Amino acid sequence: VPDSKSSTGKYFEDFRVGHAIKHATPRTITTGDVALHAGLVGARFAVQSSDTFAGAIGYPRAPVDDLLVFHIVFGKSVPDLSVNAVADLGYASCRFLSPVYPGDTLTAASEIIGLRETSSRKTGIIYVRTIGLKQDGGSVLDFVRWTMVQKRDERSLVLAADKVPVLPEVLEPNALGRACPPLDRAGYDLSLSGGPHRFDDYEVGERIDHRDGTTVETAEQQMAARLYQNTARVHLDAFSTRAQRFGRQLVHGGHVISLARALSFNGLANAFHLAAVNRGRHVAPLFGGDTLFAWSEVLGKAELPGRRDVGALRLRTIATSNRPCADFPDRQGDGYDPAVVLDLDYWALIPR
Amino acid sequence: VPDSKSSTGKYFEDFRVGHAIKHATPRTITTGDVALHAGLVGARFAVQSSDTFAGAIGYPRAPVDDLLVFHIVFGKSVPDLSVNAVADLGYASCRFLSPVYPGDTLTAASEIIGLRETSSRKTGIIYVRTIGLKQDGGSVLDFVRWTMVQKRDERSLVLAADKVPVLPEVLEPNALGRACPPLDRAGYDLSLSGGPHRFDDYEVGERIDHRDGTTVETAEQQMAARLYQNTARVHLDAFSTRAQRFGRQLVHGGHVISLARALSFNGLANAFHLAAVNRGRHVAPLFGGDTLFAWSEVLGKAELPGRRDVGALRLRTIATSNRPCADFPDRQGDGYDPAVVLDLDYWALIPR
Amino acid sequence: VPDSKSSTGKYFEDFRVGHAIKHATPRTITTGDVALHAGLVGARFAVQSSDTFAGAIGYPRAPVDDLLVFHIVFGKSVPDLSVNAVADLGYASCRFLSPVYPGDTLTAASEIIGLRETSSRKTGIIYVRTIGLKQDGGSVLDFVRWTMVQKRDERSLVLAADKVPVLPEVLEPNALGRACPPLDRAGYDLSLSGGPHRFDDYEVGERIDHRDGTTVETAEQQMAARLYQNTARVHLDAFSTRAQRFGRQLVHGGHVISLARALSFNGLANAFHLAAVNRGRHVAPLFGGDTLFAWSEVLGKAELPGRRDVGALRLRTIATSNRPCADFPDRQGDGYDPAVVLDLDYWALIPR
Repeated sequence: VPDSKSSTGKYFEDFRVGHAIKHATPRTITTGDVALHAGLVGARFAVQSSDTFAGAIGYPRAPVDDLLVFHIVFGKSVPDLSVNAVADLGYASCRFLSPVYPGDTLTAASEIIGLRETSSRKTGIIYVRTIGLKQDGGSVLDFVRWTMVQKRDERSLVLAADKVPVLPEVLEPNALGRACPPLDRAGYDLSLSGGPHRFDDYEVGERIDHRDGTTVETAEQQMAARLYQNTARVHLDAFSTRAQRFGRQLVHGGHVISLARALSFNGLANAFHLAAVNRGRHVAPLFGGDTLFAWSEVLGKAELPGRRDVGALRLRTIATSNRPCADFPDRQGDGYDPAVVLDLDYWALIPR
Repeated sequence: VPDSKSSTGKYFEDFRVGHAIKHATPRTITTGDVALHAGLVGARFAVQSSDTFAGAIGYPRAPVDDLLVFHIVFGKSVPDLSVNAVADLGYASCRFLSPVYPGDTLTAASEIIGLRETSSRKTGIIYVRTIGLKQDGGSVLDFVRWTMVQKRDERSLVLAADKVPVLPEVLEPNALGRACPPLDRAGYDLSLSGGPHRFDDYEVGERIDHRDGTTVETAEQQMAARLYQNTARVHLDAFSTRAQRFGRQLVHGGHVISLARALSFNGLANAFHLAAVNRGRHVAPLFGGDTLFAWSEVLGKAELPGRRDVGALRLRTIATSNRPCADFPDRQGDGYDPAVVLDLDYWALIPR
Repeated sequence: VPDSKSSTGKYFEDFRVGHAIKHATPRTITTGDVALHAGLVGARFAVQSSDTFAGAIGYPRAPVDDLLVFHIVFGKSVPDLSVNAVADLGYASCRFLSPVYPGDTLTAASEIIGLRETSSRKTGIIYVRTIGLKQDGGSVLDFVRWTMVQKRDERSLVLAADKVPVLPEVLEPNALGRACPPLDRAGYDLSLSGGPHRFDDYEVGERIDHRDGTTVETAEQQMAARLYQNTARVHLDAFSTRAQRFGRQLVHGGHVISLARALSFNGLANAFHLAAVNRGRHVAPLFGGDTLFAWSEVLGKAELPGRRDVGALRLRTIATSNRPCADFPDRQGDGYDPAVVLDLDYWALIPR
């Protein structure tokens, strides 16, 4: 009897541009998921931590951390797209479109929008647009990512011509804010939020060392991947990764973003909502036992059309492995300072 | 003043056939417990993950994972039975009798139904029937397990004659399905459930390599044991296990079953409900850092009396440590392939 | 552009007696937080585990574990007080003032009540009174702690004269019980609670070896610190601690208390509510991989004014690292047995 029921996951040769996929396992997000994410990440933004704080500014209750929503939607795409990923490389044009509350159920769907074989011929890069949907059919999130996946056979010819999608460098301010209801600024208590600085207090060009470090244990990154129902071998299967390039498991890239965002609270305590990711790049892997540090630069500022309650800061957060960021490690020659693991360009909303 | 308040746990000499015990610490299961179990196990069955998916087929909301119910009921029995366990060896005649939802409170009671000293004279095996009850007094679960426990003194004579209970090899189909309400098959969306295969698509004798591997860290297995309020020293006390046979902690056997079941999703995505365990055997221990793989064989198929919505697959799932299962490692001579850690024979329900 | 947005945390020189601080990040406690705390700690007290058990004695539902409330309130104070802590040293006059239920939101505020430079001149000890508040403004908790923090510059002169607050050795019985509603003793089921012993069964001077050991992994203590939004470097930043005295992360002191309290269930199963901490001292650090053991002595007993439902046991629980407590390791000469890590003197309520 042949074994036709289980899946090895797709290899680079299996993808075609235009291929659309509805992903499995709808997921009802609970306060349990929120608590475990908090225990793994340590975020301290008041809006997501407190029903009373959120209620005082106009949310019906504390919304779910934007990145938990992102990771759960992303995780759904993994069994269909990136079980055989070498690594998630980057993100673009990620927009948060609706607040998510405990009790909401998320599903996800994707479309292949680009393919490129790498020069080694052993791997290829897939470009994917993924959307997350709520139980009522409304969109909560959409984003593009590119991921390096293994080829089944390095000698195989990939028939599709290389196609790399053209993506905007930065999302326009009018694309922001849909996941943030109109806020009552008077209800936003700066003595409880963790810092005094609002929209007007930040200047373009300003750099902030977030100072704190946070260590990731292998057990933590495995629990994060499982919480997100992300099945990528490179995170969960220590046995198989021993035979691969790095010889050990990589920390889930999304988890690195969550940790960097949590570190950024020290200096950006009121930038409570991640409204969009313009570009994100996993520059290098992070491993169990490593300590993450981060710094941020204010790349831009924008008012949102018709809104006086919040403004948007365009931020670039750089995260490093085992290297404090007091001197702002950054690009170096054609690449990066060797400690850099993440380069994330995003819009965060902050009270005006 | 003598120390009479705390318990060392029972040793083999302390048990008598017929002894009945009501276990401590009733437990209200919450969505928090569900989330932490998900983070430790990574299960992806749609019915247990999603209130909307469960609601579309006739559940009032997503039921609690069957094995989480099992572990919590099992855990209650440990302080009274197996604090001094060397290892849980096996299970039989486990039936799931009622769905459990977040907010339900579970209690447990047990009866000793058999005893057998081992040839080493250092340990003995206890056979126990345990039932789990809901707050309304209804049964949610019953099962028999056998566990190797230490003798207090290897020279002591055990007065009770050996008694090994006779247990059915397999539970009859009419014993199945009580924990699964009548389902609306039309509401079961195969594009969301993770695979297209239903009852009729599986053949007796068919073997499925579940392909994925999942690594267990010591922190994870400790958190699992604690979540289940399982106090066995062999899982939680690294100091004491250093002086014992394996020199380190064993992964909680129930956790191995949960991990193997989660792996089986790749090939059995619609076999969403574990209706009964016929026989289960922990063939060898699993340790922190090990990676679990699994494969399954379809041992049988059964229609359930009066039900057209679901059928039962009798499955045997073999799990291995640090060894992929593409060649279906199995029994070998009198024993097993040395990588095998679990041999589980069970009935799972799947839509027809 | 200067970096003025992020905080390095305060150093000893920054504190003044009388300084009052309202801490950031209000936190709504959920059943998710309760579940993760359970998974990290393994507590088994029936009142906190079960809505039905709690309901049968007069609680509206299971209250949140007293120490989870303590850790969350404590955690809020860390960014303002002890990011640069060397170690939390001790506690006094901690009173639990109101039960906390899932859904309640906690905030915290502190006042500096004492300062003392240490003989090394490299560090100082701050004495702080912290209160925890519920969303309705009512107090849930107050306590004093003392913490060793780094000096910014060991040559700096600390202008404030040393001031060490005088604190009561023990809280009076009339200060106890406010967080415990009047209980229906008839509803307290001793067959479900884990032990038969009530108030009258304990004698002053009685010592109890709690027997079980529980191992802490680094991942667990990090998750505990993050769950409590405790940002102390010494728990979360492995990179920076490598250059410090112990060369590695310390287990969060509050987590040690939680683990010792969970161990004490074996012998004190009905002492379900921690009503007050008279004195607590972290005698030595605990590290990832260590196994905690504990024993307790009954220091005193007290009836509570006007209450026939519960009495108070004054307990002293000693916890050790990698050393079972059958022989009750204790003070030794001027110090302690080298294995002792915690010496906690507290009042626990127990049914009469």
